[in-house]
Amino acid sequence: MRALLFDGQLRLRTDYPLPVVPPGEALIRTHLAGICNTDLEITRGYLNFRGVLGHEFVGQVVQAEGAPELVGRRVVGEINAFCGECPTCRRGDVTHCPQRTTLGISGRDGAMADCFTLPIHVLHVVPETIPDEWAVFTEPLAAALEITAQLHIRPTQRVVVLGDGKLGLLIAQVLQLTGCDLAVVGRYPHKLAILARRGIHTHLADEPPTPGADVVVEATGHREGFALARRLVRPRGTLVLKSTFHEDVAGDVTTDLSALVVDEIRVLGSRCGPFAPALRLLEQRLIDVTALIEQVYPLDAALTAFDHAARPGALKIMLAAASG
Amino acid sequence: MRALLFDGQLRLRTDYPLPVVPPGEALIRTHLAGICNTDLEITRGYLNFRGVLGHEFVGQVVQAEGAPELVGRRVVGEINAFCGECPTCRRGDVTHCPQRTTLGISGRDGAMADCFTLPIHVLHVVPETIPDEWAVFTEPLAAALEITAQLHIRPTQRVVVLGDGKLGLLIAQVLQLTGCDLAVVGRYPHKLAILARRGIHTHLADEPPTPGADVVVEATGHREGFALARRLVRPRGTLVLKSTFHEDVAGDVTTDLSALVVDEIRVLGSRCGPFAPALRLLEQRLIDVTALIEQVYPLDAALTAFDHAARPGALKIMLAAASG
Repeated sequence: MRALLFDGQLRLRTDYPLPVVPPGEALIRTHLAGICNTDLEITRGYLNFRGVLGHEFVGQVVQAEGAPELVGRRVVGEINAFCGECPTCRRGDVTHCPQRTTLGISGRDGAMADCFTLPIHVLHVVPETIPDEWAVFTEPLAAALEITAQLHIRPTQRVVVLGDGKLGLLIAQVLQLTGCDLAVVGRYPHKLAILARRGIHTHLADEPPTPGADVVVEATGHREGFALARRLVRPRGTLVLKSTFHEDVAGDVTTDLSALVVDEIRVLGSRCGPFAPALRLLEQRLIDVTALIEQVYPLDAALTAFDHAARPGALKIMLAAASG
Repeated sequence: MRALLFDGQLRLRTDYPLPVVPPGEALIRTHLAGICNTDLEITRGYLNFRGVLGHEFVGQVVQAEGAPELVGRRVVGEINAFCGECPTCRRGDVTHCPQRTTLGISGRDGAMADCFTLPIHVLHVVPETIPDEWAVFTEPLAAALEITAQLHIRPTQRVVVLGDGKLGLLIAQVLQLTGCDLAVVGRYPHKLAILARRGIHTHLADEPPTPGADVVVEATGHREGFALARRLVRPRGTLVLKSTFHEDVAGDVTTDLSALVVDEIRVLGSRCGPFAPALRLLEQRLIDVTALIEQVYPLDAALTAFDHAARPGALKIMLAAASG
């Protein structure tokens, strides 16, 4: 079958072996897969992953032993395959299972292929009213919802989101729904315009909002993002970190450690989130993902698609493996 | 009057002018003042403070215009003098008032003198059953209680305190009262023994407890403390920072920033705390501070007392300005 492999270099293979389906897992035929910044980072060496890329997907179940009702259904899936039996899983923190593999990121081939497998219990059937092009946003939208799953954001609070990347645009839309006093800081007028059309206040990075925010969400992934977040959050406020930092941020963070104590700042790391509310918000049309789609490429043009996704300011690029 | 002044050098003055009492403030005659690590740091240049040192005290009110019932009473006092009118104060975050002065730390002469002043509304009358030598611990005990004021520590959780300094020993005793599964990591057998006598599990730093703690409190102030705290806390756990870092901790913290996101760690800066529960715990004899007293020096021997306080492993050194 076809598969987009990273083995130190990104290659589209056409002779990749069909996956063997382990017990408890489903075989899924990919409809669409989204290219995430994490995919781009992996092609630059992040996490040393070797295998088929792709963790944002919508597809159709081809085979699911023990769950015949799933066969033929359109699904999305949580990306962490966990053991379910260790203390971490039993505590409910399954996305932190130390035995976990992660779809297209760690220890498990991903969805940028004709077929792949995932455990049956992480799959979610997609309601018919959600088109494929929306469903592929379920995973990053769930990551945005992880913020409100972790932190009570009150409608009375002032919140700033830093970053107008694809994740930042989803986070902003999720946080807008709390009724909070929201501002988003970004670098790209065409991306900020997507939010401005929805009534969200936006700022270019060289004209940030005034300090004193109750909550600042850092979703830029840049050194300056962390430093700016720290400047904007009020004493006793919360700084949510959504992006991993691949740059050397030593200088800024050193300065901040003592200041975190003096100002009693709460810093909250935030990663993968809940799928069910993401599907609800998509179904109820409360989040606009259509405006976030830049282009859909056929899987055969995956290398071109990755080049496009790496352009500064690019929105969501998707790969179509089969029509829905 | 006598006053222990830091003006780039530590000097005991005997001709320091009696303080002028501003409206709304009380004149207090110092009984005892405790030497805190922050005092030692100030004498090394921390915060560029110039003035009379001392923020841990117990004393007697000499003059308090508008509050005659306080005159003659024995008091302790919160150290942040706030405006009470700005948005920060009105939100209840008075210890973060941007206009604040801080007793013996920032913009306000401290208690290591015959007399000093503090706003009447930050004073707390000390119950008669609490001796002076205990009352002087109210301020650091309040700082320990700030942890449970900020964070719900459950009796079912595993908690590790790093640091057997004076603050660490108070934090450990406060957290023990939650019923949590507590371990303390320190460097000094004689200090850990104080906790072991109370049934608290202790570890020397080279034999730390196993990782996976729900909450880790960093109270060492050393680079290694932060790194060890990060290693011991479980995914989705909380790391409480109680000490400011004066060393360069860049190396460790850089590694940690991305890891905070992946493991969804919560980091919580924690500083000054509530006095009323500190006095309650002292009155109810639920905290042992007697074991933390190393020596009481007369104010006239303040320089010798500071040398003693700076010795590695020293416990609480106090200065007696007048008898209680």
